[in-house]
Amino acid sequence: MQTPDWIAVDWGTTHLRAWAMKGADVLAEAHSDQGMGKLERHQFEPALLALVEGWLGQGVTPVLACGMVGARQGWQEAPYRRVPCGPVDAADLVQVETADPRLDVQIVAGLAQPDPADVMRGEEVQIAGFLAQQPEFEGLILLPGTHSKHVWIKGGTVTRFSTHMTGELFALLCQHSILRHSVAEGAPQPDAFALGVRTGANGQALATLFSIRASGLVGQADPVAERARLSGLLIGAELADVPSGTPVTVIGSGALTDLYLAAAAQLDLNATAQDGANLVLAGLTQIYLQGA
Amino acid sequence: MQTPDWIAVDWGTTHLRAWAMKGADVLAEAHSDQGMGKLERHQFEPALLALVEGWLGQGVTPVLACGMVGARQGWQEAPYRRVPCGPVDAADLVQVETADPRLDVQIVAGLAQPDPADVMRGEEVQIAGFLAQQPEFEGLILLPGTHSKHVWIKGGTVTRFSTHMTGELFALLCQHSILRHSVAEGAPQPDAFALGVRTGANGQALATLFSIRASGLVGQADPVAERARLSGLLIGAELADVPSGTPVTVIGSGALTDLYLAAAAQLDLNATAQDGANLVLAGLTQIYLQGA
Repeated sequence: MQTPDWIAVDWGTTHLRAWAMKGADVLAEAHSDQGMGKLERHQFEPALLALVEGWLGQGVTPVLACGMVGARQGWQEAPYRRVPCGPVDAADLVQVETADPRLDVQIVAGLAQPDPADVMRGEEVQIAGFLAQQPEFEGLILLPGTHSKHVWIKGGTVTRFSTHMTGELFALLCQHSILRHSVAEGAPQPDAFALGVRTGANGQALATLFSIRASGLVGQADPVAERARLSGLLIGAELADVPSGTPVTVIGSGALTDLYLAAAAQLDLNATAQDGANLVLAGLTQIYLQGA
Repeated sequence: MQTPDWIAVDWGTTHLRAWAMKGADVLAEAHSDQGMGKLERHQFEPALLALVEGWLGQGVTPVLACGMVGARQGWQEAPYRRVPCGPVDAADLVQVETADPRLDVQIVAGLAQPDPADVMRGEEVQIAGFLAQQPEFEGLILLPGTHSKHVWIKGGTVTRFSTHMTGELFALLCQHSILRHSVAEGAPQPDAFALGVRTGANGQALATLFSIRASGLVGQADPVAERARLSGLLIGAELADVPSGTPVTVIGSGALTDLYLAAAAQLDLNATAQDGANLVLAGLTQIYLQGA
């Protein structure tokens, strides 16, 4: 293999992925489960070397890393950049001291919003990757997940954003609340999901949760459909404040993205999906090329 | 002690309370932790006898029981009565077969609402006890707790009701969610609570939850105040749909009732508190006297 110009690193709470790069081209790829969540500060450099040492040449190789690696509990804290601002800035990276002289590691800063208080680390790079491909996009970028992010874009700038605990709340309710007796996994239930979306979008999500328990007591309820309704309630509540007609790009893939697209369609949002798999790399490449 | 005319029993998920009664007068009182939640069907009669056998005379003593004892997993299922209806009806009790011929046990039916699906067991007797004292009351009776009940009263009738998982959700978020790192118990924080109430009443509770995590990351946040704000968010959301000016009676006591009164005042609800301790007994007495 050629010696890479640089190495791209996506370092989240649970995963570590690295790419050996020649300009914008991928020479090799590697990943491990050495996420930031399981590492002490002195363990980051060994974890990185274990994955990329074979790629290093005689000289110094620049490494560009993003995600929770820059959190307070990460390798080195990268202060947040404040919105409104571009999603990333090659002039605003945080240098990490390394013991191995072959490494020149820089961490991408996350974004913060003072009021309402909000933060992101990692998503800003996916957004930069998406905007590199669609620089004219204006509207809402939605990244579903445990903590779903809504990121508003205008003129290439993140104007504001919000985090919704939709995925975490759904898991808590399904696993730990009294509703756990009333829901079950199963085939998709578009009608029950759609009913939930409508109710949630009307501001009735919290007021309606208990009906998932009660509907099984006052009549016949299908736990698979009730789980879909619960999912719809929470996603509908998440989307309640998005004005109809808003252009929405959902970054993700798989069943969860399909649910968000279905909910968005029901609420007259103009939504399309964008596969998120390669957007981190596209964003890191964007930063590298800006800084090179 | 005189032999009682009848025995009143409040039998919930976690507790069992009994009163030896002469008409509307209490001769004796006893309680145990033999709640419905820990009993198999054949264990209810022994649990009751263990508490009240000393009160029984030569003849048959009527026993009037309410609460989760009438649930599907209880001693004997008492079918729900459907709203709109009076909170209780002495003509609509469920007879339980007992082995001991000295017992004549009847269970008070709970209430159900088909759409939106909802149920209650036990609260209907507290409501009857309250209405026995204030028969002219019209408005909202609110019983805060793990599953907070909103019960709308008109002309002595329960017209509709709703259950809000406010208390359970608060506990889940404080103990099991990512917010657990950002909240702590402490002295009352009226300002933070009031801020939460306003936000929650504006339909922003779910959209604002994550800011409890983020505010500690982008600035200085006091975990005690943040816990109060979370409480306010959820209680504000619970009260969001109550029209301002509505007469509200909060049945309960202690710190939780105080929070509901503060939230209600902030939302221009005309709220007063009613101590709930003796209302079950007042309601059961009402049924006994109706049926006697």
